[in-house]
Amino acid sequence: MAPISKDQILAHNATLQRHADTDYEYLGEQLARRNIDIDTIKTQVASFGVAIPSWGVGTGGTRFARFPGMGEPRHVFDKLQDCGVIQQLARATPTVSLHIPWDKCSDWSELRQTAASYGLGFDAMNSNTFSDQKDQSHSYKFGSLTHADAATRAQAVAHNIECIEIGQKLGSKALTVWVGDGSNFPGQQHFRRAFDRYLESTRQIYAALPGDWRMFLEHKICEPAFYSTVIQDWGSSFMAASALGTKAQCLVDLGHHAPNVNIEMIVARLIAAGKLAGFHFNDSKYGDDDLDAGSVAPYRLFLVFNELVSAAHEGVTGFDPAYMLDQSHNVTDPIESLMSSAAQVQQSYAQALIVDRAELDAAQTANDALMASRALKRGFETNVTPILQRVRAEAGGAIDPIGAYRASGYRQQVAKDRPAVVGGSGGIV
Amino acid sequence: MAPISKDQILAHNATLQRHADTDYEYLGEQLARRNIDIDTIKTQVASFGVAIPSWGVGTGGTRFARFPGMGEPRHVFDKLQDCGVIQQLARATPTVSLHIPWDKCSDWSELRQTAASYGLGFDAMNSNTFSDQKDQSHSYKFGSLTHADAATRAQAVAHNIECIEIGQKLGSKALTVWVGDGSNFPGQQHFRRAFDRYLESTRQIYAALPGDWRMFLEHKICEPAFYSTVIQDWGSSFMAASALGTKAQCLVDLGHHAPNVNIEMIVARLIAAGKLAGFHFNDSKYGDDDLDAGSVAPYRLFLVFNELVSAAHEGVTGFDPAYMLDQSHNVTDPIESLMSSAAQVQQSYAQALIVDRAELDAAQTANDALMASRALKRGFETNVTPILQRVRAEAGGAIDPIGAYRASGYRQQVAKDRPAVVGGSGGIV
Amino acid sequence: MAPISKDQILAHNATLQRHADTDYEYLGEQLARRNIDIDTIKTQVASFGVAIPSWGVGTGGTRFARFPGMGEPRHVFDKLQDCGVIQQLARATPTVSLHIPWDKCSDWSELRQTAASYGLGFDAMNSNTFSDQKDQSHSYKFGSLTHADAATRAQAVAHNIECIEIGQKLGSKALTVWVGDGSNFPGQQHFRRAFDRYLESTRQIYAALPGDWRMFLEHKICEPAFYSTVIQDWGSSFMAASALGTKAQCLVDLGHHAPNVNIEMIVARLIAAGKLAGFHFNDSKYGDDDLDAGSVAPYRLFLVFNELVSAAHEGVTGFDPAYMLDQSHNVTDPIESLMSSAAQVQQSYAQALIVDRAELDAAQTANDALMASRALKRGFETNVTPILQRVRAEAGGAIDPIGAYRASGYRQQVAKDRPAVVGGSGGIV
Amino acid sequence: MAPISKDQILAHNATLQRHADTDYEYLGEQLARRNIDIDTIKTQVASFGVAIPSWGVGTGGTRFARFPGMGEPRHVFDKLQDCGVIQQLARATPTVSLHIPWDKCSDWSELRQTAASYGLGFDAMNSNTFSDQKDQSHSYKFGSLTHADAATRAQAVAHNIECIEIGQKLGSKALTVWVGDGSNFPGQQHFRRAFDRYLESTRQIYAALPGDWRMFLEHKICEPAFYSTVIQDWGSSFMAASALGTKAQCLVDLGHHAPNVNIEMIVARLIAAGKLAGFHFNDSKYGDDDLDAGSVAPYRLFLVFNELVSAAHEGVTGFDPAYMLDQSHNVTDPIESLMSSAAQVQQSYAQALIVDRAELDAAQTANDALMASRALKRGFETNVTPILQRVRAEAGGAIDPIGAYRASGYRQQVAKDRPAVVGGSGGIV
Repeated sequence: MAPISKDQILAHNATLQRHADTDYEYLGEQLARRNIDIDTIKTQVASFGVAIPSWGVGTGGTRFARFPGMGEPRHVFDKLQDCGVIQQLARATPTVSLHIPWDKCSDWSELRQTAASYGLGFDAMNSNTFSDQKDQSHSYKFGSLTHADAATRAQAVAHNIECIEIGQKLGSKALTVWVGDGSNFPGQQHFRRAFDRYLESTRQIYAALPGDWRMFLEHKICEPAFYSTVIQDWGSSFMAASALGTKAQCLVDLGHHAPNVNIEMIVARLIAAGKLAGFHFNDSKYGDDDLDAGSVAPYRLFLVFNELVSAAHEGVTGFDPAYMLDQSHNVTDPIESLMSSAAQVQQSYAQALIVDRAELDAAQTANDALMASRALKRGFETNVTPILQRVRAEAGGAIDPIGAYRASGYRQQVAKDRPAVVGGSGGIV
Repeated sequence: MAPISKDQILAHNATLQRHADTDYEYLGEQLARRNIDIDTIKTQVASFGVAIPSWGVGTGGTRFARFPGMGEPRHVFDKLQDCGVIQQLARATPTVSLHIPWDKCSDWSELRQTAASYGLGFDAMNSNTFSDQKDQSHSYKFGSLTHADAATRAQAVAHNIECIEIGQKLGSKALTVWVGDGSNFPGQQHFRRAFDRYLESTRQIYAALPGDWRMFLEHKICEPAFYSTVIQDWGSSFMAASALGTKAQCLVDLGHHAPNVNIEMIVARLIAAGKLAGFHFNDSKYGDDDLDAGSVAPYRLFLVFNELVSAAHEGVTGFDPAYMLDQSHNVTDPIESLMSSAAQVQQSYAQALIVDRAELDAAQTANDALMASRALKRGFETNVTPILQRVRAEAGGAIDPIGAYRASGYRQQVAKDRPAVVGGSGGIV
Repeated sequence: MAPISKDQILAHNATLQRHADTDYEYLGEQLARRNIDIDTIKTQVASFGVAIPSWGVGTGGTRFARFPGMGEPRHVFDKLQDCGVIQQLARATPTVSLHIPWDKCSDWSELRQTAASYGLGFDAMNSNTFSDQKDQSHSYKFGSLTHADAATRAQAVAHNIECIEIGQKLGSKALTVWVGDGSNFPGQQHFRRAFDRYLESTRQIYAALPGDWRMFLEHKICEPAFYSTVIQDWGSSFMAASALGTKAQCLVDLGHHAPNVNIEMIVARLIAAGKLAGFHFNDSKYGDDDLDAGSVAPYRLFLVFNELVSAAHEGVTGFDPAYMLDQSHNVTDPIESLMSSAAQVQQSYAQALIVDRAELDAAQTANDALMASRALKRGFETNVTPILQRVRAEAGGAIDPIGAYRASGYRQQVAKDRPAVVGGSGGIV
Repeated sequence: MAPISKDQILAHNATLQRHADTDYEYLGEQLARRNIDIDTIKTQVASFGVAIPSWGVGTGGTRFARFPGMGEPRHVFDKLQDCGVIQQLARATPTVSLHIPWDKCSDWSELRQTAASYGLGFDAMNSNTFSDQKDQSHSYKFGSLTHADAATRAQAVAHNIECIEIGQKLGSKALTVWVGDGSNFPGQQHFRRAFDRYLESTRQIYAALPGDWRMFLEHKICEPAFYSTVIQDWGSSFMAASALGTKAQCLVDLGHHAPNVNIEMIVARLIAAGKLAGFHFNDSKYGDDDLDAGSVAPYRLFLVFNELVSAAHEGVTGFDPAYMLDQSHNVTDPIESLMSSAAQVQQSYAQALIVDRAELDAAQTANDALMASRALKRGFETNVTPILQRVRAEAGGAIDPIGAYRASGYRQQVAKDRPAVVGGSGGIV
C-alpha cells in the first residue's frame, strides 16, 4: 500500500544515480584518509530513525492565524498516509507519535494495521491537558495535573492513563507528558504546592505504566503560561523524574529553553544521570518557534549529536534516547519539511559519527582548545549528503526526496479527496 | 446609559471614603515636605487617559488553546458596553481603539452614538493583514504590505485605506499599522526588497491620510514570523517613518523587543527625533506575553513614564504620544484586568510626576549616580493610590473599581444575554 | 572603636526624627487596618542581616578599565573599617564575607578582634581558583577543580581546604565554592568528564568540612568562560549538591542566570528540596552586571523574598538561607552603595512580610489570578521606609545612612591615609 | 623580512599538495554541475581580506583574570611581527588596525616601513576613551564624548583627532569610534542630553576627517556600562551617522547585540541606507564574548555574508564595507586563532558566493520557503576548504597554516626575546 509508485521512485533515482555514486566514492576516499570507513558510517546512519508527530503533517499556526495548505489531512488515517509518504521517500522516520485526543479513532487495530502497511510503527504517546475538549467535565484553564482542584487533577490523570492504554494497543512503549500548567501573574500560583501536586499526579500515572514503558517528562520555560510554568527547566524535570523512579526520564525539546542556554550541556548532564528520555527536534531563533530542525542553527544541532555519539562511543550505561521531530510547519508543505528535517537530523548524526574521538580526546587532555574545536568542525564541515543518498537509495527511498515528492503530484492528488480548510484568525491576539 | 447604577457606586465609595480621605491628606503632607502640591499632581493625573483596545475585552488565548470566560462580548456593541463599565468605574480610559474587520458593523453612526452615550470616543484604528478573512481574494500567508505579489499588496493597502475611512466616521485621528510579514526560514525573504515593498505600500496609505491624522508604525522582533520580520525593531520603524513623512511615527509596544533591551532608551531616542507615536502598554517576562501592564516589571513601566514626564517637563517640540493598552487576558476577567492595568499606568505616570526633576538634574550633572537613582526611586516608592482614588471619586468613578465591579454583578448579568462560548484547541500547536 | 562619632549620628538623627516618627505612626495605622502590627514587622526586620563581601568595599571594574575612587582600602583591615562604617550607620550588615587569598593577613586573631570591635562577625569564606597567584605551581588558565591535570586539581582542593581552616579561626561556618571553570570553544572540554572531576574534587573539600559547616555551590551561566561552564545552572548545582551530601547546598546569585529566567521559581525549587544555601544579591539588566540590589528590577527582588517569607511562614524544614551582597561598585562610593543595597534588601523583606498570606492563599485556591497579584502588589507598594528608619535608629544607626555618611566626611578622612590608586586599562579587551 | 622561512612553508605544502589538488579538482567538478566555475570563486576569495586588530595578537582576559601565554608581544613592533606571521601563512589579513594609545610609538615612519616589509598596510584607527591613561587630565569614569563636563569631552575629541593624524601618517583611511559611555543606574544619565553631547563631540571629530576618510560609529548594547549605553544599538548609530553626514557610517560588531537579534537583517538595513561601515567579526553565545569568528554559530556568519554577497551581486550603490576581526583570545595562541578565524571568514564568503542567486530569487518570488532555505544551505554545506588552500598556496602561504605555524617553532623562538608576563587577577570582580 505504498502511497507513491515504486517505479516513479526508481525512475527519479535513475537520473541522479551517477553523480550520487561518484560523490559517495570520492567522499569515501576522503574519509579513508582519516581512517574512517564510509560504509560503516552508512550502516550506522541507516539504522537511525526519528519519529514523526502526527500533528506535524497538518499546517501549523500561531495565535494570530493559521493559513492551511491544500490537501490537509482530515483524521489520523490521512495523517498516517502522509507519514507513509515521508517514510517511503526519506527512509528515516519509521515511527509515528500520536496525540490524544486529536488522533482518536474507533478502531485501534485497524490503525495499527494501516500503519504497518506503510512500514510504520508507533513511538511515544502524547497526552493533551493544555486545551479543553468538548465533553470535558473540568476545564484546564487554570491547570491540569497541578490544578488546585482535586477533581480536575483526577481527570487529567485519567486522561494520561487512557493514553497509555491506547498506546498498548498500538505497540507504543512510552508516554510523553507535557503540561501547559503555570501562571500569568506573580502570586497566581503557589510554586511549591503546584510542584507537589505535579508529583502527586504523575506518581499515579507512573503507577499505571506497563513494565516495559517509560515516561517522558517535558519541560518548557514558558507558553502558554507566561509568568511561570511548573516544569520550567531541566532542573525541575530532573527533580520530578528522580522522585518518580527509573522509568521516568527527561525529554529535551530544543525550543523550550531560555535564550542563550547551552542545550548540549543539558544533554550531557542528563546522560550522566541516566535521565535522558530523548528529544523533540526543531529549531528556533526567538522562543519555541518550532522551525525546521537545523534551519537556523545547524551547528547547535550537530553539537547535540556530538554528545549523543560521544555517549554511545563510551558506552554510557542506560543511554537509549528517543528521537522525534516536533515542528510547526506554517509556510511549507508539511511533508516536505518533515522529509527535509529528518534528513537534517540524520546529517547531524552522520557528521558527529565522523568526528575523530581519539583526536578530540587528545586535544581536550592537552587543553588544546583550537584543535579540539577543529576536530568538531572537521566533522561538521564534511558534506555527508552522499551517505544519506546511499542510505535512502539502498532502502528503496528517493535520492532526492523533495524532488521525487514534487514530481509525484501526491499533494495535488490527495487534495481531490480532502476538502479545502478555511483558515483565518482565532481572534485570539 | 451607564452600565452600572450610579447609586451603587456611591454606596460603594461611602464605605471607603474615610480612609481614602485620610490617606490623601497624609500623602499630601508628605509631598508638601518635598515641595510638591498633591492637588496639582491630582489634576495632571485626572487629565491622563489610556485607550482600551476593543479586542481586549474578550478573553485572549494562545496557539495552544483559548479558555473563554462567561459573558464574552458577541460584537462591537457588547465590547463598547464593557468598555463603558471600565470607564465608568475606573475613569482612566476615555477612548476605545477598534480593530477592522473584527469590529465591523452596519451602522457606524449608531456605533459612534453608542460610544458617546458611555462617554467614550475613538482612538487609533487598527488594520488586520495578519490573518485571512473569508471573503478575501488574496491570502496573507506569505505577507501583506510586503508580499512579493503586487495584487496582494494592493489588497492590503486598500484595507488600510478602508480603516482610515471608517475611522473618519468615528472621529479617530490615527491609523496603527502592524504587519505580521516576515519569514520563517533564512532565505525565504529578500530583506531589502521586502522593506522596499513595505515603503511602497505604506506610501500609498500615507497618501490617503486626512490632514489631521497620524500613522503609527509598529515594530516587533518576531511572531507570527519566527526567523525575521520586516519591521523588526525601532531602527527599521524609524527608517520607514522618516521615509514616509512627518505624519508617520513609531509606536512602541512594550513586549515587542529582544530580551534585555532598554526600552526607555528607545523612547528617549524617538522623543528626540520627534518620532514617538505612542504606546501599546502591557508587560512581559519572556516575549510578547501580553501580560497586564506593570504586573511583572513595574519599575520598567515607571522608567518609561520617567522619559515621558521628562520630555513634557522640558517642553520637547512635537511631543504628543498616544496611549493604549494592548494585553491578552487569558486567566482573568478582561474588565478587571483593564481597570487594574489602566490604574497601573496612571500610577506610573503619577510617580514619575513626583520625581524631583531639579534634584535629578543636579545629580546627573554631578555624576552622583547614587543620588540620581534615589531621586527616581523616591518617586517610584511613593504610594500614589490616594491620588488615584481621589481622581476616580471626583470623576464619579469608584474608589476601588475592582471591588465595585464585583459587587455590581455585571458579569453575571451580561452572561444571561451573551451565550457561553466553547473554547478548546485550534489544533495549531 | 566606632569609625563615625556617635554624637554625629545622634545629631543627624535629631533633624529627621520628627517626620520619621510621624511616618511610622501613620504607616502603623494603615497596616493596622490590614490587621498587621507594625512593631512585629519592625522586630522581624531588625533581626535580619545581610553579609558584606570584603571585596565590595573597593571600587570594581570591567575588563575594559577600572576607575578607582579616593580612599580605596589597602588591605583587609581597611576593608573591615569600611564595613564597620556600613554596619554602624545602616545596621543591616552584621557580618563580612572574606575572599582568600585577597584577604590574607598575618594575624587572623587580630583580624577577628578588629572585626568584633566594629560589631562584625564573619560569614561564608570564599575561595579563589579563577585567577593565578604569584606563587602558584599550577595555572588555572584551563580550569581548577575540574582541570584535566590531577596536580592542578589537587592544588585547587588544597586551597579550598585552607579557606576552611582560615574560616575556622574567624568563626565562619560556610565555604562558598565558585569556579570559573568551563570552555570557550565547542569541543574544548568533555562535559561529562569535567563534571565528574568537579565531583571528585568537591568531595575532597566536603570531607574536610567541620561538622557544623555548610558548603555553598554557586552556579553561573557564563563568564569568564564563554561557551560553557561546569556548574552552569541550578540543575547542575543541585545534581552536585545532592551527590555531595546534606551539608552541600546551592547558592543563588541573582545575576548568574540566562535571560528571562524566573529566579524566584528556582528559589522555590531549592527550598522544596532542602538545598537552598542562600544568596548573592545584586541586580542586572544584561548579564552578571553586578549592579546594586534592586536598582533595576526591584519587583524581582521582592518576588524572591516572597518565596523566602512564604517558606518561613509555612515552616519548611531545613530552611536557613545565608544572605550576602555581591556587587561591583564602578561608579559610586562603595560604602554608599552597600548601605543603600542593604536597605533595599531589608525593604524587600519587610514588604514580603506585609503580604497577607491568608488572602494570597485564598486567591490561589480560587484561581483568582488578579486578586493574588494584587495581594503581592499591596505588599510591594507599601512604602516601608518608616520601619527601616525606626530599626536603624533603635539600633544606634542613622535614620538616613547616606546623608549621615556624607556629613561625616569619612571618605575624605581615610583618603589622607590611603594613597590614591592609579586606574587605567588592563589592556584586556 | 618574512618571519617564517619560505622554504619551510614550501616543504610543509609539499606534504599536502597532492590531496589538496585532488580535492580542488573534485570540488571543481561538483561546482561545475551547478554551473559554477571554481576558478572564478577562487579569484574572488583571493581578493578578500580582513584586518587584524593589533590588540588581538596579545592574550585577552576577563574582569576576573588574564592568563598570558608565552612570547606575548611587548609593543607595537612585536605585534606587527606577529601579524606578519599570520599574513605570511594565511594570506587573508593584509592590514592591521591600530589602537591608540596602546600602539603609540616614537617613529610612525619606521612603523609604516616595518609593516610594509611584512606586506601589511593599516586599516581603521581605533581611539580609546574607555580607560584612563596615566598622563590624562580628565577621567573617563563618567563618560568621554558624552561626559557632562565640557573639558572632558574636549579631551576626548582631541584624542580622536590625534588618532586621525597618526592614521594619516600610516595610510589609514578610517577612524572607528567606540565609547564605553553610558550608565549603571536608572537616572544616572539624561538619555537625550547625553546623545546630544555625543553628536556635538562627534561633529567636531567629523570636521577633522580628511576628505577621503570615513568615520565608523560602533554601537554596543552594554558593557562596560550595564544599565544603558549611549549608542546602544544600530538605531542610535544610524541616527547619529545620519546627523553627521555621508562619511559617517555604522560599524557592526557581531557580539554587540541583544540576545536573539537578527544581525543579518541589521546588515541589510544598513546596506539599503548606504550606512554600512563594516564589521568587527567574532562569535558569541552569551554576550560580547569575543570568541573566534564562526566557532559557535557558523551559519549566522554565513548569513551575514549572504547579505554582503547579495548586495555586491546587485550592485547596491555605495556598498563598500570594511572587515576586521575583533576577538579576545583567552585560551589559545592568538596567532593560531587569528589565522583560523580569518580562514573562517573567507570560508563564509566563499560559501555565500556559491549560492545560486537566480535559484534563490526564484524561490523567494514563488514563496517557496523550503527551496529558498535549501539554496542557502547548499552554499553553506559546500566544503570550500580546497578553494582556501589553493588561494593560500598560490599566494605563497601555507596550505595548512596552523600546522605550518606549529612546525615553525615561531612562538618558542620569540618567547626567548619576549619576557614572560605575570598574569593574575586585577581584583576587579
